[in-house]
Amino acid sequence: MIDEHLPGSDKPLPPDWALQDPNDYIEVLKHTVPAVLRESKINPAEVIGVGIDFTACTMLPTLKDGTPLCYLDQWRMNPHSWVKLWKHHASQPQADQINETARRMGEGWLDRYGGKISSEWFFSKALQILQEAPDVYNAAERLIEATDWVIWQMTGVETRNACTAGYKAMVQDEGYPRREYFAALDPRFADVVDTRMSRQLADLGAKAGDLTEQAAGWMGLKPGIAVAVANVDAHVTVPAVKAVQSGRMVMVMGTSTCHLVVGNSLQPVEGMCGVVRGGIIPNAYGYEAGQSGVGDIFAWFVDNAVPKEYFEAAERNQMDIHQYLEAEAAKQKPGEHGLVALDWWNGNRSTLVDADLTGLLLGGTLATRAPDIYRALIEATAFGTRTILEAFEGRGIPINDLVAAGGLPEKNKLLVQIYADVTGKSMYFAGSSQAPALGSAMHAAVAAGAYPDINAAAEKMGKLKDEVATPNPENKKVYDKLYAEYKTLYDYFGRGQNDVMKRLKQIKREALA
Amino acid sequence: MIDEHLPGSDKPLPPDWALQDPNDYIEVLKHTVPAVLRESKINPAEVIGVGIDFTACTMLPTLKDGTPLCYLDQWRMNPHSWVKLWKHHASQPQADQINETARRMGEGWLDRYGGKISSEWFFSKALQILQEAPDVYNAAERLIEATDWVIWQMTGVETRNACTAGYKAMVQDEGYPRREYFAALDPRFADVVDTRMSRQLADLGAKAGDLTEQAAGWMGLKPGIAVAVANVDAHVTVPAVKAVQSGRMVMVMGTSTCHLVVGNSLQPVEGMCGVVRGGIIPNAYGYEAGQSGVGDIFAWFVDNAVPKEYFEAAERNQMDIHQYLEAEAAKQKPGEHGLVALDWWNGNRSTLVDADLTGLLLGGTLATRAPDIYRALIEATAFGTRTILEAFEGRGIPINDLVAAGGLPEKNKLLVQIYADVTGKSMYFAGSSQAPALGSAMHAAVAAGAYPDINAAAEKMGKLKDEVATPNPENKKVYDKLYAEYKTLYDYFGRGQNDVMKRLKQIKREALA
Repeated sequence: MIDEHLPGSDKPLPPDWALQDPNDYIEVLKHTVPAVLRESKINPAEVIGVGIDFTACTMLPTLKDGTPLCYLDQWRMNPHSWVKLWKHHASQPQADQINETARRMGEGWLDRYGGKISSEWFFSKALQILQEAPDVYNAAERLIEATDWVIWQMTGVETRNACTAGYKAMVQDEGYPRREYFAALDPRFADVVDTRMSRQLADLGAKAGDLTEQAAGWMGLKPGIAVAVANVDAHVTVPAVKAVQSGRMVMVMGTSTCHLVVGNSLQPVEGMCGVVRGGIIPNAYGYEAGQSGVGDIFAWFVDNAVPKEYFEAAERNQMDIHQYLEAEAAKQKPGEHGLVALDWWNGNRSTLVDADLTGLLLGGTLATRAPDIYRALIEATAFGTRTILEAFEGRGIPINDLVAAGGLPEKNKLLVQIYADVTGKSMYFAGSSQAPALGSAMHAAVAAGAYPDINAAAEKMGKLKDEVATPNPENKKVYDKLYAEYKTLYDYFGRGQNDVMKRLKQIKREALA
Repeated sequence: MIDEHLPGSDKPLPPDWALQDPNDYIEVLKHTVPAVLRESKINPAEVIGVGIDFTACTMLPTLKDGTPLCYLDQWRMNPHSWVKLWKHHASQPQADQINETARRMGEGWLDRYGGKISSEWFFSKALQILQEAPDVYNAAERLIEATDWVIWQMTGVETRNACTAGYKAMVQDEGYPRREYFAALDPRFADVVDTRMSRQLADLGAKAGDLTEQAAGWMGLKPGIAVAVANVDAHVTVPAVKAVQSGRMVMVMGTSTCHLVVGNSLQPVEGMCGVVRGGIIPNAYGYEAGQSGVGDIFAWFVDNAVPKEYFEAAERNQMDIHQYLEAEAAKQKPGEHGLVALDWWNGNRSTLVDADLTGLLLGGTLATRAPDIYRALIEATAFGTRTILEAFEGRGIPINDLVAAGGLPEKNKLLVQIYADVTGKSMYFAGSSQAPALGSAMHAAVAAGAYPDINAAAEKMGKLKDEVATPNPENKKVYDKLYAEYKTLYDYFGRGQNDVMKRLKQIKREALA
């Protein structure tokens, strides 16, 4: 990640900038694929297709032959010529303008994204280039997701995948937002789609093209094999855990949690991140929701609020600090610590879509100890997930069980059980610790024709562990009570009854001004 | 303190018991007074009077000659024969019965104590003796405050001071509660005042008697000098800091804070601990209020929520951890941390009189650090004090400035400034680090006739430091905003709009059952 200064420059990048070098992606292909082939003792001749997944929206400006502008001496020193990584948040003014303009013009697609477009998304970043570096914008013959760009490098063919187009570039059944809308943002932006993108989108699992000689050389693979249309890390996990039918919610749990579920009908679910037809599985509605702080909150707690005795005890017990706090917290019964928290240390993504909300801890006494708070924070994130589940279920999108993927559930047994107890749903686990890579491989298999579609591939190649966490009915009863308290506080602080969190942020801004 | 087992016994005391040995008080006189005389090079012949102050309610059962029952072999192994220290909380069932009965019978004095009698007070403890050890109660010819008992030992005369009688034994202008009320608590309790106490009360500053030969021998003082009526540690501080007129509030700040103010009229101030005519200064109304957790909350935080880096940095800077966190927190402007807290880690004494309320911290983000929270907790206790001030001022009892005594303000400069900024009042400081001892000496001087009354003694002997903390108007403006947020939360969680704190305590009790 490039967030301090450009390579070869001392000039500091402004706050909230996060860039990448597209050449690094090619380097990864050159190193990783041969290494994986070697270690797994797979005969390259047997590989029939290639697929990738990626962070999104991560986008870059290129020439029409795909050459990144940052490869060119003319543009290399302009930070807008580089890849804007998903976590580049400096496009917030543009996102604000995008939202305000969409609301004012009554754009119908806004509701499909929980009523708010993120600074992380495609047009926020594209508009920032136009407004802050119009020369770069003018030189950019193409603006493209990095995941599509990598597939372009492998095939020589420019394609645009339906997933990022839908979730990050506001493509709905009626296509991209209308020209008048883009013109209202900036007259120079009116034709951004037609001049720098493409209205032709490729289904997930379709073949983008054949692997070129050059790209085959990078990876040590056979030229001419199928290359699948590009995909996104979270979304590609869904078939990898066999969640291709409605009723099963996939939770990719790490620093934050991404919730993904396939539905058969289009429903306005409150505060979801997006619903896109074909965004996860072709011909079905893919719903995405999220919690903006999960593992990040536990890490914050451990780094900022845990006394040294716990670290020492963890070391004595040869556990990491999270394991040790979990083990201590696991000695308690639900409700025993007397605490309830709101999991908003990093704002609330779904269902409130409000980055200005902040964390709350209630119930502290002189007898409160670190494992009590640790458990209360885990519970708060589980309550946050239950809120999201109920938003889906309230709109008739069934959620029968959960599948956990990502790093967090693998190491945290108490967390997993708390999620099952709080939601009352059985929780399954990704069978591969590299579930996104498995999902990408499945798309490659479909693109190569080994399976008729991703559903068939999921049936055969998808993997769940045998293990399942089932809700404990006694615990569920107590958590129902605690969840009722959480919900009351959620509504009170999150829905305008008491906007103290926003006012504190305002007071803070004034204090720092 | 005796809270594990009686001397000479292995039998553990039940939870919440806290006893003392009355002989220790005599030992203190024998050791401390001669040592003080020696160190201060005071000629004992020049000492004209003696006064003491004490914790309260700290009480014991004795024979009618003053012999503590715990001195007698017959009773020595019964814990109810010992001194019950102020923090003995095992009388809560009796306090509940006292409150419930008073409410049911419409006893008028209840409002003078914020509507609630504490488990710490005199009749809660006396009733516990009766109910749990009727044989000890029957053998007890006298039930008496330890402070009065010590004066009895010095003079041979049993007196009862107006302060503890008023604040801890529900004496108001009409005297003790009526016989019918005590009978309703327990028929055997009907005549507790007439059989085991006295209706004759002595004014503060009056002479209790002459120092006996024996007691003079203990202390190395002249027999026959004046001994002042007994007094209480917090209340005796008021004249020591010259706060004998209305308009100046004394705050004795330590693990908790005790607020004392003299008023000229009787007013029903919400949730005060007590108002007693002559309870602080003869012929004036003495008001007492309190915050049940202040220094205790900071200590809790430091012990339970501060990472080791801060301790290491404090050590490098040769500061104690509180000083270091204060110094870090002092770098901020008011409002900069974006937090607000409710200071209820140990419940709320005034104005809500509710031990079931708990702590709250709101505004946490991934960027929140320990000094932020430390500062927010200091501010929360200052907001708690402002709430109490406003309750007095709202009833027409003026509070023009504050005087801080106790250990906390001496070491914590930021805390002092925050209290001034939050309340908008100038804050003065006790001139003696032994302000209660100075107050006791003043009462002795009055008893010996050196001054006509305590007001005159205060004028001459009272001491304030030259230093004063004055409110910063810019900070006050920001704190007015933060206080408004605090008040909204205070009312929402403290006055029944959302009783989540009580419900969490109930859920906790059920979980532990």
